[in-house]
Amino acid sequence: MRASSDEVTLLAVETVSENKCFGGLQGVYTHASAETQTEMTFAVFVPEHQPGDKLPVLWYLSGLTCTHANVMDKGEYRRLANALGLMIVCPDTSPRGAQVADDDSYDMGQGAGFYVDATEQPWAKHFRMRAYVETELPALIEQHFPVDMTRQAIFGHSMGGHGALTMALRNPDRFKSVSAFAPIVAPSECPWGHKALGGYLGPDRATWRNYDSCALIDDGARVRDILIDQGGADQFLEEQLKPDLLVAACKRAAIPLTLNMREGYDHSYFTISTFMDDHLRWHAERL
Amino acid sequence: MRASSDEVTLLAVETVSENKCFGGLQGVYTHASAETQTEMTFAVFVPEHQPGDKLPVLWYLSGLTCTHANVMDKGEYRRLANALGLMIVCPDTSPRGAQVADDDSYDMGQGAGFYVDATEQPWAKHFRMRAYVETELPALIEQHFPVDMTRQAIFGHSMGGHGALTMALRNPDRFKSVSAFAPIVAPSECPWGHKALGGYLGPDRATWRNYDSCALIDDGARVRDILIDQGGADQFLEEQLKPDLLVAACKRAAIPLTLNMREGYDHSYFTISTFMDDHLRWHAERL
Repeated sequence: MRASSDEVTLLAVETVSENKCFGGLQGVYTHASAETQTEMTFAVFVPEHQPGDKLPVLWYLSGLTCTHANVMDKGEYRRLANALGLMIVCPDTSPRGAQVADDDSYDMGQGAGFYVDATEQPWAKHFRMRAYVETELPALIEQHFPVDMTRQAIFGHSMGGHGALTMALRNPDRFKSVSAFAPIVAPSECPWGHKALGGYLGPDRATWRNYDSCALIDDGARVRDILIDQGGADQFLEEQLKPDLLVAACKRAAIPLTLNMREGYDHSYFTISTFMDDHLRWHAERL
Repeated sequence: MRASSDEVTLLAVETVSENKCFGGLQGVYTHASAETQTEMTFAVFVPEHQPGDKLPVLWYLSGLTCTHANVMDKGEYRRLANALGLMIVCPDTSPRGAQVADDDSYDMGQGAGFYVDATEQPWAKHFRMRAYVETELPALIEQHFPVDMTRQAIFGHSMGGHGALTMALRNPDRFKSVSAFAPIVAPSECPWGHKALGGYLGPDRATWRNYDSCALIDDGARVRDILIDQGGADQFLEEQLKPDLLVAACKRAAIPLTLNMREGYDHSYFTISTFMDDHLRWHAERL
């Protein structure tokens, strides 16, 4: 896949900020992305470690309207991530900038990349979030951070839960574990997905299946197991998230799924932070 | 002080938001303040509890430029506050609005109330943050939340650490404990304080002493003990915060002071969240 490190050019990264926190270091960085052809921002938490240590890395993909910053500010992951020795990488949710196509609505365009490689206009040039998160950013992370790329896991929220599940299902050898908070499990079956996949990929629904967790499972993709926490008071539960579709797909495929319905909890980071520790432990046990 | 509850009018409060979180409820509320003559916003976390329970309350005062929201988003207090059964109240840092006097700088006017009752123009009408936080808001909290007002404690950050220390020193019977993150301990001895106290209170430094922790201690005020966490990489340490002045004042007064200097930590919420648990436990042990 990638050339060995002495054959590659060092990918340039600029430091936006670094703050000591819970014994580790929370950083924010930017770089010029070849995939999106924009400057991209991402956050990395590096737990305290010994010189020469190579750390397992847990990817967190964010939801609609979010940047790298929402989970960094509100996710409350650093205390336990430091204790467990987990590196946490949080990409942005789309390309951004005046030159990048956009849409007036919150669920399409900038802030709503849906972790796909767009094929349709006006999106195809910049909206390459699958290639960016799946390939380009990992190569950069491996060059600049003390990471063991044989120990990767992934999780996310809502649209980012969709991103995490689909990336894990497409790359079972790369990700040791996967979990999600309130994920979109079947974008082919909900309004957010119809709009996004239709807009980015066009009307041929066969092309959508690679970006739909339930379709991927029905088409044969497998992961070891899945953890999901879903708020019972989530305003998007019935129309957009539909965890029952994933329950059925996992049942058909005999994938162990732990779905925790959390009474009274909504779609916000108040819910994510509440169950963050459970997810960090889930991944640490499998990494 | 206050009339018993059957003699008072219920103070009106509007709910902005309420989110279930860590088993408790994080709320944001507004009300028309008689002291500031503005609408004021505050946040309250109520831990899970049994009907009829009366909870101890810990006040958190925020620093320059902050609102009620900064610590709510970034303070990471809810997990342990829920476990310890602590209610957390987070007021705003000043009156706000187009009709309220302001200053172009970040350290005067809106967002920079310094927890004083201003006597000078143009501030005196609205900048009544001492009376608001010390008297008006507690009366409202007692009416609307399941609180045991005989069990109160207070802490804060930077300007809010100054607010917490001075309120505790002026009200030793009310607050069972006090702590601070990177507090301004002697506003009479630093540029932030010279500007704020000079602006709000005028040039007569005798009037400043009631708003200066070191001066209050030298004038005889006492608390049981004080906990402070101070980042060693705090950009404001030398010029503005000067913890050594509090160390000396506490030594003169025989007040036990635990000052934890934290190497590499800065003035941000990354530091506050890191040491939040220690402070919550400090207060829980004393409440």
